[in-house]
Amino acid sequence: MEHFGWVCSRCSATFGLADIRYTCGCCPHGGRLTLALDYQRLGAGHAPGDTVLLDEPSMWRYRRLLPVTESLSTSWVALPVGWTPLYRADKLGKQLGLAELFIKNEALNPTGSLKDRASALVVAKAMELGERTVATASSGNAAAALAGLCAATGLRCLVFVPERTPASKLAQLAAYGATVVRVRGDYDTAVELSLAASAEWGWYCRNTAVNPYTAEGKKTAALEILEQLGWKSPDAVLVPVGDGNILVGLYRGFVDALAMGWINQLPRLIGVQSDAAAALYEAWHRGGTEVVPTRAATVADSISVGNPQDGYRALQAVRDTNGVLTTVPESEIVPTARWFTQQTGVLAEPASAVTVAALPRLLRERHIRRDERMVIVHTGHGLKTLDVVMAGSPRARVVEPTLDALRSFITDHHGGEPAFVPANG
Amino acid sequence: MEHFGWVCSRCSATFGLADIRYTCGCCPHGGRLTLALDYQRLGAGHAPGDTVLLDEPSMWRYRRLLPVTESLSTSWVALPVGWTPLYRADKLGKQLGLAELFIKNEALNPTGSLKDRASALVVAKAMELGERTVATASSGNAAAALAGLCAATGLRCLVFVPERTPASKLAQLAAYGATVVRVRGDYDTAVELSLAASAEWGWYCRNTAVNPYTAEGKKTAALEILEQLGWKSPDAVLVPVGDGNILVGLYRGFVDALAMGWINQLPRLIGVQSDAAAALYEAWHRGGTEVVPTRAATVADSISVGNPQDGYRALQAVRDTNGVLTTVPESEIVPTARWFTQQTGVLAEPASAVTVAALPRLLRERHIRRDERMVIVHTGHGLKTLDVVMAGSPRARVVEPTLDALRSFITDHHGGEPAFVPANG
Ligand SMILES: Cc1ncc(COP(=O)(O)O)c(C=O)c1O
Ligand SMILES: Cc1ncc(COP(=O)(O)O)c(C=O)c1O
Ligand SMILES: [Zn+2]
Ligand SMILES: [Zn+2]
Repeated sequence: MEHFGWVCSRCSATFGLADIRYTCGCCPHGGRLTLALDYQRLGAGHAPGDTVLLDEPSMWRYRRLLPVTESLSTSWVALPVGWTPLYRADKLGKQLGLAELFIKNEALNPTGSLKDRASALVVAKAMELGERTVATASSGNAAAALAGLCAATGLRCLVFVPERTPASKLAQLAAYGATVVRVRGDYDTAVELSLAASAEWGWYCRNTAVNPYTAEGKKTAALEILEQLGWKSPDAVLVPVGDGNILVGLYRGFVDALAMGWINQLPRLIGVQSDAAAALYEAWHRGGTEVVPTRAATVADSISVGNPQDGYRALQAVRDTNGVLTTVPESEIVPTARWFTQQTGVLAEPASAVTVAALPRLLRERHIRRDERMVIVHTGHGLKTLDVVMAGSPRARVVEPTLDALRSFITDHHGGEPAFVPANG
Repeated sequence: MEHFGWVCSRCSATFGLADIRYTCGCCPHGGRLTLALDYQRLGAGHAPGDTVLLDEPSMWRYRRLLPVTESLSTSWVALPVGWTPLYRADKLGKQLGLAELFIKNEALNPTGSLKDRASALVVAKAMELGERTVATASSGNAAAALAGLCAATGLRCLVFVPERTPASKLAQLAAYGATVVRVRGDYDTAVELSLAASAEWGWYCRNTAVNPYTAEGKKTAALEILEQLGWKSPDAVLVPVGDGNILVGLYRGFVDALAMGWINQLPRLIGVQSDAAAALYEAWHRGGTEVVPTRAATVADSISVGNPQDGYRALQAVRDTNGVLTTVPESEIVPTARWFTQQTGVLAEPASAVTVAALPRLLRERHIRRDERMVIVHTGHGLKTLDVVMAGSPRARVVEPTLDALRSFITDHHGGEPAFVPANG
């Protein structure tokens, strides 16, 4: 084979890289395509530095593991994506009683979420293919990522988002100049409409999981985690789950690293859902391989998915890594997002907080141990959902500019306990 | 001398590093303190790699040029700051007719602005000094930076912001758990109250320019720009100006690099203000060294400063680099922020857009040439000001999930020109 091809995740049919656009036609729901790499040709067994472009401070440092034309560099430099910080969050770890808890801060991608990785690769392919218009359904972040990358490269962009997308996410999309189709209904409805419209009018469709480059773009986050840990696998990686495509993308990166001989074992993949949108967890719990669509109504808009687009592969990935799928109570999500932000200085959108909310239960059920090295993938920027996370908080009162007014404000603010103003102050 | 000391920017009095807290008492307005470094002891004349910690992907790679205790690492790793992307924005450059226009994207710092650099150093010093409470006045971003760093390290945080701070910025502060004092009045009023209160109650005061570590923290952005360009100075660096402290901080970094022998000449520093808040520009225009406070009422809240806190040093820095101060019409700021975002995929807050708005005038007045290598410092994340930048935009209409409804929506959206839907579609 060439360096790259596609293989169907259900029936194992193989396809040439350029011979198929989205999914395997003969499989139920359209079998998702996974990239097949010729690891030998790509330098397996050699040091990572022989393959990784160490001077490139973006996801494109792994471009030799990505199915793109080397010479096509416009979209790579137009808006650099990836190479985000990974660091040990000791204060948070201590609060939770965990020895080595790392944060991979994907909110520091250019449009504020991990989705930039998928959109960057899809836009690179769109340019390679000579496409003019790219469309996607999205709960908000994938749309922003596509809109940002299209703004940077000059492609036209259409995004399909649910009616209830948070106001900041809608405004962000408009700011990039995308055409925003706010669909009456939920994310699953937006998915249906975007697929029908892309087929009807010939737009290049970025839809999560349907477009196989989405998971391949996201795999760069896993490669970064490993490189940032000195090519030592953590014990477990925790990730919020809606469609399951982020989880699958991370798995793809870990598998590549293992096959290249850069690590010795895969980390356990732990996927977390809200109990108000738990289609994947339910399939896991039943022990099945098929996902049954459910109702989805969580405040964590990014994972409010009833009919996961990458369920089959996500279940495979969790199983293959000895991982687990779990849920958190819906009522804990927003309080945990606030608590996490106050412990770390990292502003979390609700979806990003479910991993943190799950840690106590995971400990209790012995899916993780206190002395393990764990990475939580912080997937989305809380600046996009301040109205959701801070809903009900009192609007900051205006204080007159005098020391007396200030003293009483502070005393009030701390419920009579004047923390900052010495009693004799 | 030791490796480090302070020197007053007005009277040149020198002080031991630990012997003075904020400003020179004998000088008008409190002479601002500038760090004096013993460049010989720090390795001047050697390759940058002898001093720069090349493996540290944050501003702390330059910690040998920062006046901190080497062993104090808690605040460094609690929330990594800096090492943000620098890249050539070719699409934008082409639109403006400029050959080599670079963006330094400081919005990708953890709290969304360049201010994280100052707060990271101030918080490191606060911890070194055993302080418990840190306070600051701010138009919003410096406050967020301090609140985020305090959340990550466990210090108490009080912030003083103007009454009219954008809603997202207020919510961001609350999310980090800071005590937010929303002061009746403008930024200059908030500055006065914060100084009086810090003196009264003994809080460690981070105020921009008054606390000399603020500019020193920001100098790391200049060092990064140089390192990212292979230690070759660009011709000019453009920066929005309110207090003038970012400009001074960048200057400090360029001066350090020159003194260390890492570059051969300083880039020209070009500071840009709104014509509705132009105190520094007016002083420059008069040819003076003293700034006269003016009215400040610009939509670019981050640079709405009537009484700049670092005016004297900013004027010095512009003069010393053969730079210039200029203004843009207030009415152009928001439209330019929107245009910039649509050309780059980088969401700009209004203050961040004034540099872009100034480019045509700078070209016309021959302060820059089309073939020069220029860097615009993108200082703040547009997610914080979406309501300001997108004010008046129609809220996205809800579309029924059918192809027919979609077809008419798209046709309407493009004013009768069905850009995405082929006429025969
Ligand atoms: C911030 C954030 N977290 C998590 C997810 C879940 O990813 P996936 O739907 O691929 O499971 C998303 C997807 O939109 C997201 O935007
Ligand atoms: C985004 C942004 N740009 C520019 C500035 C101006 O910096 P300075 O006040 O130091 O001149 C600020 C200061 O608040 C800012 O937040
Ligand atoms: Zn198949
Ligand atoms: Zn002095």
